Amino acid sequence: MPRFKVPEVTVERLSIYLRAIKNLEGDEILSSQELADLVGTSDGQVRKDLAYFGEFGVPGQGYRIAKLKQEIRHILGLDSTWGIAIVGIGNLGAALLTYPGFKREEFEIRAAFDRDESKIEKVWRGIKVQHVDKIPKVLSERQIKIGVITTPATSAQEVADKLAKGGVKGILNFAPVRISVPKEIRLKNVDLSMQLETLSYFLRKLT
Amino acid sequence: MPRFKVPEVTVERLSIYLRAIKNLEGDEILSSQELADLVGTSDGQVRKDLAYFGEFGVPGQGYRIAKLKQEIRHILGLDSTWGIAIVGIGNLGAALLTYPGFKREEFEIRAAFDRDESKIEKVWRGIKVQHVDKIPKVLSERQIKIGVITTPATSAQEVADKLAKGGVKGILNFAPVRISVPKEIRLKNVDLSMQLETLSYFLRKLT
Repeated sequence: MPRFKVPEVTVERLSIYLRAIKNLEGDEILSSQELADLVGTSDGQVRKDLAYFGEFGVPGQGYRIAKLKQEIRHILGLDSTWGIAIVGIGNLGAALLTYPGFKREEFEIRAAFDRDESKIEKVWRGIKVQHVDKIPKVLSERQIKIGVITTPATSAQEVADKLAKGGVKGILNFAPVRISVPKEIRLKNVDLSMQLETLSYFLRKLT
Repeated sequence: MPRFKVPEVTVERLSIYLRAIKNLEGDEILSSQELADLVGTSDGQVRKDLAYFGEFGVPGQGYRIAKLKQEIRHILGLDSTWGIAIVGIGNLGAALLTYPGFKREEFEIRAAFDRDESKIEKVWRGIKVQHVDKIPKVLSERQIKIGVITTPATSAQEVADKLAKGGVKGILNFAPVRISVPKEIRLKNVDLSMQLETLSYFLRKLT
């Protein structure tokens, strides 16, 4: 494990590297330049990112793909399964419940919550929606360590408090509002419009 | 405009910087260290990111906030309005149609499309869903330059082709599949599970 604090962007790039090599043959060796080309970054950036986590390359050649996949998965904590709860089963919550990237061996949606009585007891791909008041109980019973908030802004803080009470270690917050959580919980705010802003930059250049 | 190719992560950080200073007083001066602290990166990273775009700091002090906002908005192409179309009005498409971050002066959703007859003619926040076959015509009529794909994987390529025919400059693809577009179109694939992977890393460290 790294001796220095690893920046979040480095961690995000590990996730991008992993995606880029996912379907490559494990026996091959990939140079840092080749990996850089696959994801559109520089050779130096790849080497710097991976150097945080020690040496696992083949000196002078690059990285054996199978080993690289295994190491990145290990670094990202993807060699075990995270139990997930989604809170707020509006359009976004429902989209995530059925999103293929959220249904993998590393991430297992184990519970869904809403406060709207008309949504409770409905079943989405095998997950029954329960009342938000049950969050603390269900989370500890089902070993759920990640909470995803997809409620309107007005409910997000209350939900975060319940998730904290249920013992989550991390929260992914899609609600467009700042929430506060106890310092032992890792909070990640997701703003989908950031993707539009990045696109806007590159389009602007082309005009 | 920059003399060198600017990495996508730098552009993403500009978007993060802008969000961090949005509610700060315009008259104040912010040092690169203060900006770094706001977003959880390093002083050097901030200076390096901004240096791509020339000098707009106050020498020896930092950046005047009003000027910094204006410059970043300009760099990101957010000083004009982008017309947007959303294709695929399932849960995710409907979520984006009503997502606050997608309804700002910089981004204006001007059209929504689906192929499912039961969804066509329905109105979401003032936007009437139209049949996907109308994409090329509506896009050129309504000056829509960004297409957002929220269809299932199986329809994504066909939709991308229609968007290209309609003259978009950029595509944001949420469908979990690789699509190809003409080289003059900028494609950005969005994988919502990357956010989970980043979170997983930080939780793993705490265990």
